[in-house]
Amino acid sequence: MARRLVVIGGNAAGMSAASQARRRRGRDDLEIVVFERGNFTSYSSCGIPYWVGGLVEGPDKLIARAPATFRDEYAIDVRLRHEVVAIDLESRHVVARNLENGGEPVHVRFDDLMYAPGAEPVRPDWADGGLAGVFGMQTLDDGAALMDWLGAEPAPEHAVVVGAGYIGVEMAEALVRHGLRVTLVERGAEPMSSVDPDMGALVREAICGMNIEVRTGVTVTGLKESDGRISAVVTDSGELPADVVLLGLGVRPNSQLARDAGLPVGRTGGVVTDLRMRVADGIWAAGDCVETVHRLSGHPVHVPLGTHANKQGRVAGINLGGGYATFPGVVGTAVTKVCDLEVGRTGLLEREASAAGYEFVTAVVKSTNRAGYFPGAAQMTVKLIAERRTGRLLGAQIVGRSEAAKRIDVVAAALWHETTVEELTAFDLGYAPPYAPVWDPVLVAARKAAVAVERAGQ
Amino acid sequence: MARRLVVIGGNAAGMSAASQARRRRGRDDLEIVVFERGNFTSYSSCGIPYWVGGLVEGPDKLIARAPATFRDEYAIDVRLRHEVVAIDLESRHVVARNLENGGEPVHVRFDDLMYAPGAEPVRPDWADGGLAGVFGMQTLDDGAALMDWLGAEPAPEHAVVVGAGYIGVEMAEALVRHGLRVTLVERGAEPMSSVDPDMGALVREAICGMNIEVRTGVTVTGLKESDGRISAVVTDSGELPADVVLLGLGVRPNSQLARDAGLPVGRTGGVVTDLRMRVADGIWAAGDCVETVHRLSGHPVHVPLGTHANKQGRVAGINLGGGYATFPGVVGTAVTKVCDLEVGRTGLLEREASAAGYEFVTAVVKSTNRAGYFPGAAQMTVKLIAERRTGRLLGAQIVGRSEAAKRIDVVAAALWHETTVEELTAFDLGYAPPYAPVWDPVLVAARKAAVAVERAGQ
Repeated sequence: MARRLVVIGGNAAGMSAASQARRRRGRDDLEIVVFERGNFTSYSSCGIPYWVGGLVEGPDKLIARAPATFRDEYAIDVRLRHEVVAIDLESRHVVARNLENGGEPVHVRFDDLMYAPGAEPVRPDWADGGLAGVFGMQTLDDGAALMDWLGAEPAPEHAVVVGAGYIGVEMAEALVRHGLRVTLVERGAEPMSSVDPDMGALVREAICGMNIEVRTGVTVTGLKESDGRISAVVTDSGELPADVVLLGLGVRPNSQLARDAGLPVGRTGGVVTDLRMRVADGIWAAGDCVETVHRLSGHPVHVPLGTHANKQGRVAGINLGGGYATFPGVVGTAVTKVCDLEVGRTGLLEREASAAGYEFVTAVVKSTNRAGYFPGAAQMTVKLIAERRTGRLLGAQIVGRSEAAKRIDVVAAALWHETTVEELTAFDLGYAPPYAPVWDPVLVAARKAAVAVERAGQ
Repeated sequence: MARRLVVIGGNAAGMSAASQARRRRGRDDLEIVVFERGNFTSYSSCGIPYWVGGLVEGPDKLIARAPATFRDEYAIDVRLRHEVVAIDLESRHVVARNLENGGEPVHVRFDDLMYAPGAEPVRPDWADGGLAGVFGMQTLDDGAALMDWLGAEPAPEHAVVVGAGYIGVEMAEALVRHGLRVTLVERGAEPMSSVDPDMGALVREAICGMNIEVRTGVTVTGLKESDGRISAVVTDSGELPADVVLLGLGVRPNSQLARDAGLPVGRTGGVVTDLRMRVADGIWAAGDCVETVHRLSGHPVHVPLGTHANKQGRVAGINLGGGYATFPGVVGTAVTKVCDLEVGRTGLLEREASAAGYEFVTAVVKSTNRAGYFPGAAQMTVKLIAERRTGRLLGAQIVGRSEAAKRIDVVAAALWHETTVEELTAFDLGYAPPYAPVWDPVLVAARKAAVAVERAGQ
C-alpha cells in the first residue's frame, strides 16, 4: 500500500514540498492529499499590490500552478476550501472540514504530514470586530475580497493604510494607482522600520512625493462605522475619513493547530523544525508558519517571505521523498519598491545588532548605480554595519532610485560567509560604465566601513 | 628630508596609489612625482566607446581627476607627456624624457617606486606599419586620435573591427552609433570568447540585429592602403573595404621597462608582485601591467580591468603610506553591454576549468529578471559550472536583456568563498516581484546544477 502524505496549506511551502516529494516518489509509492482553506494554490501573495494597482491582471496571472495542474501532472489530490481543524499525532489522522457545505468533519489518515498553513495578518483589538471594509492582506482570497470592495458601489474614495512596513507602503502605492486618496499611518517616527531610522527618513521624503499622505508618530485607537461599514479611523491625533482600511501591521504564524497537537512552537510563535524542516517523526513544516535561525544573531526569527517558503518547502519535499537537503537559515534580506524608490536590506539593523550583543561601526555613502558620466546615472545611499575589532560585516541597507535594491544580494552573499568589510573591498564585482562606477557603491561603502573599523581600533 | 615616491603611469593604478599614500603621509614627509606618457590622468578607458558613440561628452567627462586637482589638493607633482625610459635599481633613479620638446633625458632619484604604466593593444604584424586610420583603443589619447580621424574630411564611412571581445563589440556598437557601417571580424566560431561558445552564440544572434555585420571564423591577414591611408582589410575570405580599423585583439602588459631593470615578469607577461603589490624592496606595481592570481585555478592571470587597477593601486598606496592591505586575487568577473544585450561572467569558463584540472558539470536555465507576471519581465539565460563530486561552484555566465549582467556579482561573491551549488540554492537573495521571480534566476540555475552534481554521483 502506498504511504500517504497529507499537506496542510496549498501555497508556496506546501505545494513546493508536495511537488518535490512527487518527483522522487511515484504515485504508486506515495499518495499526496493537500487541504487548502482558500480558493487558490501556489500563488504570489507578493503580487497582490500590483493587481490592486492595475499593473498585473489578477488573480489568474498571480497563480503559478492551479489545482488542475497539480492533479493532472503531479497526481496530487488538492482539496480547496478545506480547513484542517485538528491533528491527532497518536492515531496519525487529521480532521478536515469542507467550508463550502459546512458538512461533517472528515478524518484522513497520514503517514507523513506536511504542515504549511502560512500566516495571517495581525489584527489589533480595534480591528477585531469584522467590520466591512477592513482588510488584512495575506492570501489571494484577501486580495479578491479587497478588489470586490473597491469595485462595489458606492466606490470607496478614502483609504487608510495602518502600518508603513513593506505591505503597508506597497498597498498605499497600489491604492493611489487605483485612484483612491490614501493616508499611511505609522506609529514609529519613520516609515519602513525594516531599515534604520536614518534610511527610513530617505524613504519618507520619497513617498511624500507620491500622493500618499504620510502620518508618522500616530497611533490608531479605533474605527468608526456607519451602517455597518467603515467610515473613519480614530487616532491619537484625530480622525481620518476612510471607506477602506488596510492593515499593514505584519503577520503571525498560523501555529495554533500545531500547538494544539503538541508540536513544538517557539518564542517567535513559529513552529520549530530541525535543519531538514522536520518537526517530529514523519511531521514536517515550512513557510510562514515556522521559525528559522538568523545566521548573524543566532536567534530564532519569524520571517514570512515567499522566497523562504519556497526554499523550505523544497527542502522538506526532498527529505520527504527520501533525499537529503537542509535549510541553513536566513540573513534577513528583503527588497521593496515604492514607485521608483528602491529599498533593500540584509543582515542586522543597528537595533538588531545591539540586541544580538554586537558592538559595531557604521558607514553611509552616496554613490551612483552607473558610472557618474553614463546616461541614466542615479544616486543611491548605502549603509554598512560592521563589528568592532573584527570588522565582520553585520548588515547593509540601500535606498536608491534605479538598479539599487538588488545590489543588496552581494552583501547577503558576503554575510552568508562571515566576510569582513576589509575583504569585501576586494570583491571582484562586475564593472562596466552602464552598470557601475569603477568602485561599485557596495565597495565604496566597504572602504569607508574598513576605515571606520581601523579608526575604532581595539 | 622627505622621501620621494616616483610613480610611472598616471591613470587608475598609479594615481590611486599616489592618493592613498598622500592620505597617510603629508607633503613634508613624502614627495610624490608622477610621470605620465599621455595627456590625461585618472580617466575611464572603459568610457571611450560611449564617447565615440555619442552617449558621453568626451574627453572631459571621462576624467575623474585632472592633473591640477592632484597638484592642488594632493600635492602630487604630475608631469604629463613624460615617458620613463629606464629604471636603475642600483642607484634608485628613473630616466624620463619629455615627449613634447624631445629634450635631454632627466634623471630623478626615488626612495619608493610605483610601477603602473598599464597595457597596450596587441598589434599583429599586419598592423605594425603605423598605417593612418588603424587604431588600438586603450588610452584616452587613443580615443582622442580616433575621434579626430572620424571628424576629419573625408569622413570615414566603413569601419572594420578586428576581434569580437569586449572592446571589439563595444567599439562596433559605438561606431554604428557614430553613423558608420561596421563589420566585426572574429577568428573564432562565436563572438565573445570570454564566455563559452553556447553563450557566445546568444550574443551573436543578438548583435546581428544591431546593424553590425558579424563575420566569425574569419582571419585577418593584412591591410590595404591608398595614399598612406587604410582602404581595406584583407582576410582569408576576401577583402573588406575600410577607412577606419579598430583593433580589438586584447592588450599586453607594459612590462618591458620593468624587465629591463631586472624586475620579475611572469609567464603572462605581467610584473610579479606579492599580496601587498610589492615587487621588490621599495618597488611596487599595480594595474594593467601586473599579473595576479585567479582564486579558482590558482594560476597567475593577466586581467586588465579598471576595477582591479583601482583596487590594486589603493592597496599599494596604503602599504606605501605605512598601512597594511593586500590584494587577494580575482575570480574573473566581467560584464559588458552591447545595445540592450547584457553579458556577465565570473569564475572559469569550461575550457578554463578543464585547463585548471577540474572535472565539472554544467547547468543552463532560462528565467526572467522580474516575476514572470510583472511588467517589463525579460528573459535571461544563466549557466553555472560546478565541480564534479564536491559541487563546488566554478563559474557562471549570464546573457539577458535587462537587469541580467550584474546578477553575476552574487555568483562572484559565492565563488570568492568556495561555495557549493547546493549551498547557493539557499542564499538569502532579495525577492519582490519588480526585482526577481520568487526563485532568483541564479538560484534556479543553482538548483539545476545541484541536481546535475547529484546525478553525476561519485
